[in-house]
Amino acid sequence: MLRYDTGKGEYKDWIVEEAAFDSRYLGKCESIFCQGNGYIGQRAALEESYINETRNLFVTGTFNSFDGDEVTELPNLPDLTAMRIIIDGYPFSMERGKILNYSRRLNLKTGELERNVGFETLDKKQLELSFRRFVSLSDEHIIAFRTEIKAQQDIQITIESGIDGRVSNTGSQHFKEGEKRLLDGRYLRMSSRTTNSNVLCTQHVAHSFKIDGKAVSAGFVPVIDRRQFYIRQSISLDAGETLFIEKICAVHSSRDMAYYKKQDTQAQIEKDGLETIEKAYKMGYKLLFEQSRIAWQKLWEAQDIYIESTDSYDRLALRFALYHLNIMVKKDDDRVGIAAKGLSGEGYKGHSFWDTEIFILPYFTFTQPQVAKALLSYRYNTLPGARRKAHENGYKGAMYPWESAWLDDGEVTPLWGAADIKTGLPMKIWTGLIEQHISSDIAFAVWQYYMVSGDKNFMHNKGYEIIIDTARFWASRAEFNEEKQRYEYNGVIGPDEYKEHVNNNAYTNYMAAWNMKKALEIIKSLEPDLYDKFNNQFDLEASYRDIENVLKKLYLPKPDQNGILPQFDGYFDLKTIDLSPYKKSPDVGTIYNDYNNDELRNIQVSKQADVLVLFFLLEELFSSDMKKTNYTFYEDRTLHDSSLSKSTHSVLAADLGLQEIAYEFFRGSANIDLGPNMKSSDMGIHSASMGGIWQCAVYGFGGLRMKKGELHISPRLPEKWDSLAFNVTYKQQALKVKADKNGVSVTNFGENVVEVVLYGEKREVKSLQTISVIKQ
Amino acid sequence: MLRYDTGKGEYKDWIVEEAAFDSRYLGKCESIFCQGNGYIGQRAALEESYINETRNLFVTGTFNSFDGDEVTELPNLPDLTAMRIIIDGYPFSMERGKILNYSRRLNLKTGELERNVGFETLDKKQLELSFRRFVSLSDEHIIAFRTEIKAQQDIQITIESGIDGRVSNTGSQHFKEGEKRLLDGRYLRMSSRTTNSNVLCTQHVAHSFKIDGKAVSAGFVPVIDRRQFYIRQSISLDAGETLFIEKICAVHSSRDMAYYKKQDTQAQIEKDGLETIEKAYKMGYKLLFEQSRIAWQKLWEAQDIYIESTDSYDRLALRFALYHLNIMVKKDDDRVGIAAKGLSGEGYKGHSFWDTEIFILPYFTFTQPQVAKALLSYRYNTLPGARRKAHENGYKGAMYPWESAWLDDGEVTPLWGAADIKTGLPMKIWTGLIEQHISSDIAFAVWQYYMVSGDKNFMHNKGYEIIIDTARFWASRAEFNEEKQRYEYNGVIGPDEYKEHVNNNAYTNYMAAWNMKKALEIIKSLEPDLYDKFNNQFDLEASYRDIENVLKKLYLPKPDQNGILPQFDGYFDLKTIDLSPYKKSPDVGTIYNDYNNDELRNIQVSKQADVLVLFFLLEELFSSDMKKTNYTFYEDRTLHDSSLSKSTHSVLAADLGLQEIAYEFFRGSANIDLGPNMKSSDMGIHSASMGGIWQCAVYGFGGLRMKKGELHISPRLPEKWDSLAFNVTYKQQALKVKADKNGVSVTNFGENVVEVVLYGEKREVKSLQTISVIKQ
Repeated sequence: MLRYDTGKGEYKDWIVEEAAFDSRYLGKCESIFCQGNGYIGQRAALEESYINETRNLFVTGTFNSFDGDEVTELPNLPDLTAMRIIIDGYPFSMERGKILNYSRRLNLKTGELERNVGFETLDKKQLELSFRRFVSLSDEHIIAFRTEIKAQQDIQITIESGIDGRVSNTGSQHFKEGEKRLLDGRYLRMSSRTTNSNVLCTQHVAHSFKIDGKAVSAGFVPVIDRRQFYIRQSISLDAGETLFIEKICAVHSSRDMAYYKKQDTQAQIEKDGLETIEKAYKMGYKLLFEQSRIAWQKLWEAQDIYIESTDSYDRLALRFALYHLNIMVKKDDDRVGIAAKGLSGEGYKGHSFWDTEIFILPYFTFTQPQVAKALLSYRYNTLPGARRKAHENGYKGAMYPWESAWLDDGEVTPLWGAADIKTGLPMKIWTGLIEQHISSDIAFAVWQYYMVSGDKNFMHNKGYEIIIDTARFWASRAEFNEEKQRYEYNGVIGPDEYKEHVNNNAYTNYMAAWNMKKALEIIKSLEPDLYDKFNNQFDLEASYRDIENVLKKLYLPKPDQNGILPQFDGYFDLKTIDLSPYKKSPDVGTIYNDYNNDELRNIQVSKQADVLVLFFLLEELFSSDMKKTNYTFYEDRTLHDSSLSKSTHSVLAADLGLQEIAYEFFRGSANIDLGPNMKSSDMGIHSASMGGIWQCAVYGFGGLRMKKGELHISPRLPEKWDSLAFNVTYKQQALKVKADKNGVSVTNFGENVVEVVLYGEKREVKSLQTISVIKQ
Repeated sequence: MLRYDTGKGEYKDWIVEEAAFDSRYLGKCESIFCQGNGYIGQRAALEESYINETRNLFVTGTFNSFDGDEVTELPNLPDLTAMRIIIDGYPFSMERGKILNYSRRLNLKTGELERNVGFETLDKKQLELSFRRFVSLSDEHIIAFRTEIKAQQDIQITIESGIDGRVSNTGSQHFKEGEKRLLDGRYLRMSSRTTNSNVLCTQHVAHSFKIDGKAVSAGFVPVIDRRQFYIRQSISLDAGETLFIEKICAVHSSRDMAYYKKQDTQAQIEKDGLETIEKAYKMGYKLLFEQSRIAWQKLWEAQDIYIESTDSYDRLALRFALYHLNIMVKKDDDRVGIAAKGLSGEGYKGHSFWDTEIFILPYFTFTQPQVAKALLSYRYNTLPGARRKAHENGYKGAMYPWESAWLDDGEVTPLWGAADIKTGLPMKIWTGLIEQHISSDIAFAVWQYYMVSGDKNFMHNKGYEIIIDTARFWASRAEFNEEKQRYEYNGVIGPDEYKEHVNNNAYTNYMAAWNMKKALEIIKSLEPDLYDKFNNQFDLEASYRDIENVLKKLYLPKPDQNGILPQFDGYFDLKTIDLSPYKKSPDVGTIYNDYNNDELRNIQVSKQADVLVLFFLLEELFSSDMKKTNYTFYEDRTLHDSSLSKSTHSVLAADLGLQEIAYEFFRGSANIDLGPNMKSSDMGIHSASMGGIWQCAVYGFGGLRMKKGELHISPRLPEKWDSLAFNVTYKQQALKVKADKNGVSVTNFGENVVEVVLYGEKREVKSLQTISVIKQ
């Protein structure tokens, strides 16, 4: 059971609490209480073990393929979270005895996870246990744990704690047995290599044991077993004494930027790891935590979004989203993308999808442009794989992988899914082949980043190349329909994945057109040296002609007599059914109880926003009336069975003045992970949804948008919100935006003047100036 | 807690009972309640899951290496034992609620394992659960489970059961993700291949659900997930009703004899598997069990050893040993050996050691000679690997692997063990290199088999070749000591593994001499055609000369002035310490608390019987006085930290007339797995110890022995035993031996007359005749 209102004082609306323990729902809080720093992601499995727990520790970029038949995935590192606490001979488990009180709280402000348990053993001994842990935001290699155990009676405690390499990715073991070594009689080291990609992961762990401030004198016993290296420490604890255990860990990998492309790095990595652990061990939990807390404090000073709402859940939900957005990505690393589950679970194998560019990137583009730049540079660095994919499919240019992992992996969408259990034939996974809109999604995000940041340098070095080469893909990908004398995109999957193999998906065609149009503009405007560079690479003249030719004759679906833009050819011929039972269900995918995939293809039903994403991204192409008509039409037909759906509906509803509907969808988005459904997050949090929550607040209610190279801010708050304050970095100037029911004010903390459009009024904001505009 | 006295009526002294559940000791009964048929071994993990459980399913011969760094091992197949029983929303666990009564019983007579639990849930609902399972002895592919659940209140039950491929060997995953298919809407199939050896394991599973005899009408839902394929069945059970669940499984592998060396067998294996499961499913648990029970009945009719003892534990212990001896080996398969843990655990990786020939084989040689023949044929079939090992080490002939796995694997002892955690250097495992006595152990077992069975055919085809080629190894292995003008074997490990790198280990030298002497006798007596065959292979004349030359000058250690045969050169120079604390300890290996390996080398202490094994195997070479002197000397210095130790001391003590000491050692042997130490068997049962228990009874107290080609039977029962009856197959004639305090009688159930020596009296026993001799 979750509680959202238990943060007090400075932590009011910063605390997510699990207020009762229920071992049926371990996955929920393991995921949503995940801690990390973009380099490390550590799922919040408890110290003691429970059936159906999932212990996950990921390090960004360490991809490995279990065997030739499985696609590469982010491997689960040897676990550091487990600690066996054996009390009077019995391993501590909250299921063996009586829980007197229980509270587990993730503090979003400090990044610390804390659990307090009052417990009575079957022998009627009463214990107070307190567990704290964090993944450092100030030193990305460090994870620390602190445990306190106090008993009202004398007890014998044995602690077993260390590094456990018996974990896997749901049974697929990515690591060879690690090398283990005890250093200075204190530091446990395990160095494990992935089976195929040969990535080295080196973990160091050190423990300290104190009773009421006094170090425990008896030494521990180091235990080596297959894939395990741990210490065993036995302690007699007298009634009323408190045992303090600190476990400090350091994690390094050969995929770290420091060792990238260097040879024979193991000795260096182990040396660096030992230095890290030695220093960290001397500092101890409190000092390490203080450093990390300060790093979080700095982050929040720049990033917090303050909402005054009659329901403080809204404020918490925003912070929850921002917390996860800031731990899911290694901010300075242009070799890694954002995983669909962040670093919080095995779901989607650590792969990156369009989720990044369309749902998550706007947050970074508008608030931490250097992160957006790193993420787009990652896409630039994966261009070779995108070109290989295009080439292998008979196209030109860059066809981005639907699922992307390590730099040179190219397309990593599994080709075959589980077998159809009835026919026995493996089911083809089509997304990697025909869900092609990701190429224009990336181009779109590049342009958006440029518009917001003004980062010409990036465009010269990387951005233009992405936009031009994806346009070249779209030009070669188009099929000419002789009969209708037009180009088409047939046999694709649009955003709505309930519909495979559709022709002229509106989203796909319009976004491809945008991509090609932007490429033509860019080519025309290129300075001579850049033109020469690209000309050498692409034959720009021919490319321009090809693109222009396709663009001129590209079929862009038009609204029917009712003003509805068809999602794809023949959409209106599909039958309609009563979707209300599925729309009302608190669970997703309930339509599968009544219809299978083949049947879904013939029904006007969408898994997620499809046409509406188009109205949102290319908003200037469509009139408000048309948007409204289509919004109603498609909302009726959308089940929101994808976590990428509700935020789009929320933003669009807000655009259309439907603030209360927008608010409902905002809450729906916020509830995907943070809400009361205890089974929603087992495989990890929903990264895109975190970006979506930000979009609901800032794009939707904040009315922030880039249009024709201008920054528009037109806040329109929902009933429950009295005010909304957020920060934006625009053209490298830090702006603070404050909105209330009456209007908006923008303060420029940068040095340079910026131009913004407030409720349609173009205004200059000088350095340290605040401009306010009353809402009409 | 185990009980041994709860078998009633026809099952008196056939039942081993776990009378209370304690989740700290899961490994004990998982191992000792292991079920199997030599083809399959299935550890007795419970249906519901507990922390620290080990689910193991092994199929003989399916060896695989996880990666190039790990030696090959018997892989853990996808699990069939797990069944999630969800009652009113909570997974059933005996730790979540109150156990009202508990009993788990392995019936050694029928091979069935039964668990009965009375249970009260936290909601105060009272349940009676009954679980039965067996691995069929009549159809080696079949495993069946039967579960009954009765509630005193209405309950909602959901059952999740199927095939779970998330298991591994302590983290090393040997299987690629399996192909899953649902056949006829009923049969689950998973076909999994090992990662390197490409062995296919196909498992079929079918379930049936009945309430009080009436089939449950609602269908199940098949669920496919990563490495999992199971069904989910939800049922409303009214108060007083009983739910019956049957789970029938069929297991096949491409290493089965039927598919051996055939190409593209997957379709055939899957077809055969489906036929098996279809037939078995139709028969149902009761009929399948009845067939298996009859097979066990036949086995026991021939194999039971009946002891009248004042402590009926002795009778149970013998049956327990015979039960495991008969499920640890695939009796008709000459491609597989016996694993050190049988098929009951991951310990020793499924490898075969000298345990087979010296400790286990005598049982089969004397009671099921066709099994002994298959096991020795396995050694014959591994000769290429033995020759390769000799060649790689610079020797001639056949140097048998210390650890042996699949036919062409050769030596599979890991070269390197865990790192010394202090120096960080991996510790070399020397046994594979220098524990060389296994070659003569195998030769010895071949000759013993010949003496008992009279199987000339085997000797012509296989036996002679083993003895000659191992003798050739010993001749080439010997080192000439110029100073002493003699051959020596230096730098070896004898049976006592606390002593590495010793010179002239008495056991090694004497057994090598025996091996060479036997080879010379054989070569001299070979018929011309065989002589020619071996001459082509070996150059017999040169071989004979080489062997004879070494044998003549081979140093055989002699007793010192006190009549003590030194275990190896310089043994008497080692220091003596007080070993009594370690000898008194109920745990093994306690000397390591005070001494490390280097220190142990310099102390007169043995892990296990060493010289005494020599006195036992080559008993005719040594006088009774000398044996007695040495017995006392070495018993004082032996810690019995190996499960291969106590039975030798027992037999030797019995030989020397120390019946009560022999009895204590017999009980010690019996207790290794069956006894009250709940941590002794976590990694699996001790195969050699099972053979040792038989040896204590039949060799020791039964006084059975082959000497100079004659079968001696001189029973000498311990105080507590009134009688002992066992069967022997001698020269293909079935003999029944009955002994009591007064003497012995032998009945010949065969057709041919046999000659036996009873208390030194040579007697002929004609067909269907009984000969009795009174003990002097």
